Amino acid sequence: MRERLLTITEAAQQLSAGETTSRNLVETCLARAADDIGEGARVYLTTYADRARADADHVDQMRANGWAVPTFAGVPISIKDLFDVAGEVTRAGSKVFDADQPAIDDAPAIQRLRAAGFIIIGKTNMTEFAYSGLGMNAHFGTPLSPYDRATGRIPGGSSSGGAVSVADGMAIATIGTDTGGSCRIPAAFCGIVGFKPTSTRVPKEGAVPLSKTMDSIGPLANSVSCCALLDSVLVGNGGENVTKRANDTIRIGVIDNYVTNGMETAVGVAIDAALSRLSAAGVGVDHLTIPELEDLPHINRMGGIVGAEAYAFHKPYAETRAHLYDPWVFSRFDAGKAQSAADFIEVIETRAQVRVAVANRVQGFDALALPTVAITPPALADLADPDVSNATNQMTLRNTAVGNFLDRPSISIPCHASDATPVGFMLMEHTDADRVLIHVAAGLENLIRGR
Amino acid sequence: MRERLLTITEAAQQLSAGETTSRNLVETCLARAADDIGEGARVYLTTYADRARADADHVDQMRANGWAVPTFAGVPISIKDLFDVAGEVTRAGSKVFDADQPAIDDAPAIQRLRAAGFIIIGKTNMTEFAYSGLGMNAHFGTPLSPYDRATGRIPGGSSSGGAVSVADGMAIATIGTDTGGSCRIPAAFCGIVGFKPTSTRVPKEGAVPLSKTMDSIGPLANSVSCCALLDSVLVGNGGENVTKRANDTIRIGVIDNYVTNGMETAVGVAIDAALSRLSAAGVGVDHLTIPELEDLPHINRMGGIVGAEAYAFHKPYAETRAHLYDPWVFSRFDAGKAQSAADFIEVIETRAQVRVAVANRVQGFDALALPTVAITPPALADLADPDVSNATNQMTLRNTAVGNFLDRPSISIPCHASDATPVGFMLMEHTDADRVLIHVAAGLENLIRGR
Repeated sequence: MRERLLTITEAAQQLSAGETTSRNLVETCLARAADDIGEGARVYLTTYADRARADADHVDQMRANGWAVPTFAGVPISIKDLFDVAGEVTRAGSKVFDADQPAIDDAPAIQRLRAAGFIIIGKTNMTEFAYSGLGMNAHFGTPLSPYDRATGRIPGGSSSGGAVSVADGMAIATIGTDTGGSCRIPAAFCGIVGFKPTSTRVPKEGAVPLSKTMDSIGPLANSVSCCALLDSVLVGNGGENVTKRANDTIRIGVIDNYVTNGMETAVGVAIDAALSRLSAAGVGVDHLTIPELEDLPHINRMGGIVGAEAYAFHKPYAETRAHLYDPWVFSRFDAGKAQSAADFIEVIETRAQVRVAVANRVQGFDALALPTVAITPPALADLADPDVSNATNQMTLRNTAVGNFLDRPSISIPCHASDATPVGFMLMEHTDADRVLIHVAAGLENLIRGR
Repeated sequence: MRERLLTITEAAQQLSAGETTSRNLVETCLARAADDIGEGARVYLTTYADRARADADHVDQMRANGWAVPTFAGVPISIKDLFDVAGEVTRAGSKVFDADQPAIDDAPAIQRLRAAGFIIIGKTNMTEFAYSGLGMNAHFGTPLSPYDRATGRIPGGSSSGGAVSVADGMAIATIGTDTGGSCRIPAAFCGIVGFKPTSTRVPKEGAVPLSKTMDSIGPLANSVSCCALLDSVLVGNGGENVTKRANDTIRIGVIDNYVTNGMETAVGVAIDAALSRLSAAGVGVDHLTIPELEDLPHINRMGGIVGAEAYAFHKPYAETRAHLYDPWVFSRFDAGKAQSAADFIEVIETRAQVRVAVANRVQGFDALALPTVAITPPALADLADPDVSNATNQMTLRNTAVGNFLDRPSISIPCHASDATPVGFMLMEHTDADRVLIHVAAGLENLIRGR
């Protein structure tokens, strides 16, 4: 049985009550990150040990003196390697930018986190340029899912190191990005909560883009409440508290087609058990099919919006620095490179039509429910063959990418039994209804988890 | 000397005062359209003679009975051939759609015009699918500019028939579209006023698209005030009156580079004379260069946004109905067809950067001034060679397309002496500052015209 990890609220309360110090929380994170038995060497690509200690001591002194501090002052978190931090070259899990200029400023999202008092432990590993859902990294190694370390399973990606940093207590929460599932897949594979907001919700300046249209900045953490607080901070609000919606006011629609194709038995069993708990507690649970989803592979057959936008951003580097990329990641540019302007315009227009059709179809539900990933985390050793890793990547991204294609805020909540193989239960909301989703998810969290 | 034509306000006042009838105005337009000596056969592709007479009689009867009628009830106008009219196949100056289904509803823009009381005389000729600035049409013939009919000069396009319908008194005003200059070029070449609003200002449903990003719906008419009233109706407002800005509150910036390359002497002389009249009347007249404009040919070298979007829309027809297109128009799809998704994304991003750079550079001016077209209308007979017509088309579109690329509302006002070769003086405003432009243009109109 893994130890129970702190939530942000618990950490902030302990700090506020003088039951712990920020220096203590920071040292715990740093010690776990430095532990040779653990995954720290593959989780953190940069560790801000000295800066984090200095920040923590400063906050502790202010609290000791009774001076006002921000709400979350002293809570240690991690951030994905693609965010600008002033004075550093932003790597995005790659070697391609190593010789480029350092960032002048922190990304706005990072500025907001610091202003709210969070202390940044380090920058976490990721799929190179966030361009896969598996979480493997050819340059810096692959951190393992906390589940079944003996076998060694992938953490999911692209926010791989971030998810493991939280699951292994090297940070209390982390900030990732999600273009096709990159917050939610690693959350599901590592047994934590991951949230993809509406793509336009958090400012994206200072974050290396994968797809400027689809990219979304969101948190991964130990509870819905943690994600809610971080979302509020990232949006520029103060980290307001969450109202839990009452069970009997919620009607969820369980998607029965497309997202369940090829589903592993363990996933289906865990999802069904969670749905039974929800029903028994008075939550309205109905099933529906969304035929439009069946068209997504065809609509995106030429790489889709992500393929086109990823290649458009990387074109100048792909032409001059191809040797610096992981060849497996580099090969993913092929589809976008071959895509014509007319193809791109067609997928944009089709996407708009599908979004309207789905919105009309699901308007009676407070949220949609589906498995975050229809499979459980595969063993890293089984993914050496590119054909296998490509097929596994497609399967891993399939369900979460529905949320990106529709630009619906979506949250993954663990629904497996303790020590069982991790399974994520995803709730999905209307575009821009991010806080509605959070209130529903907060209301249902304990039922979904089976606590 | 050509007869002085009615403005919308004059027509509405005469109708309101009982000095004329709508039937009389409609009959005058229909008679001019039917006159074999004139251009009517090439101006109107459809004439609604019976419907227009019935509408006119109905309005006249309501007025005679003292019943309330809309402000512009009974004023005859024309509309470009690309707008949906319920029950008709929408041609867009082409034969490609002839076997397709008729429109179910009037386009929203047309609905608003009818609701304001305007009577539609007919649908006017245009460049096939609006894809050229010259105004030639291989299927339906080319209406001639009112200037120098002995030689036979092109009317400018794509709203060719609309401009001639107004210049020759076959309608009091007309509604066109402008993607690269299609309202303003024919206005300049036919000696009337033409207005391109911000592209998102008027709803574009029910208008056959050329470029969904760049298309703008706007009026061509005999005065700035006519355009102002029609713009207000098209936007869904009531046709509110125009406030003329006082001369000494206006500072205009005359663009001295790019738009003046290769300018004909007659154009430069007319523009300079207008600028002298403005200065003498107390208008602030300063000159500036906008270096960013020099980059436009390079930015758009692969067909630009219009090329990509035009081909994306026409792709299904181009693949199955190529033989129905004018080969000269069809060849214009080549660039868009060859454009990659990455090229398209690059031009969109570059455009956004250029718009910001230009906005910063010109923020001290109330409006920018430039020649609508740097040449006077060429003879139709000189344009038979495709190389010549392509080069002339590029030159004709060059200055107006600046307004589309920057998405700045722009208006062309005649500045030539009576019976001289027509020259348009263009004023250009910040994006979404359409009514500011109209107030400035209304204030300066008589000075620009030299009245």
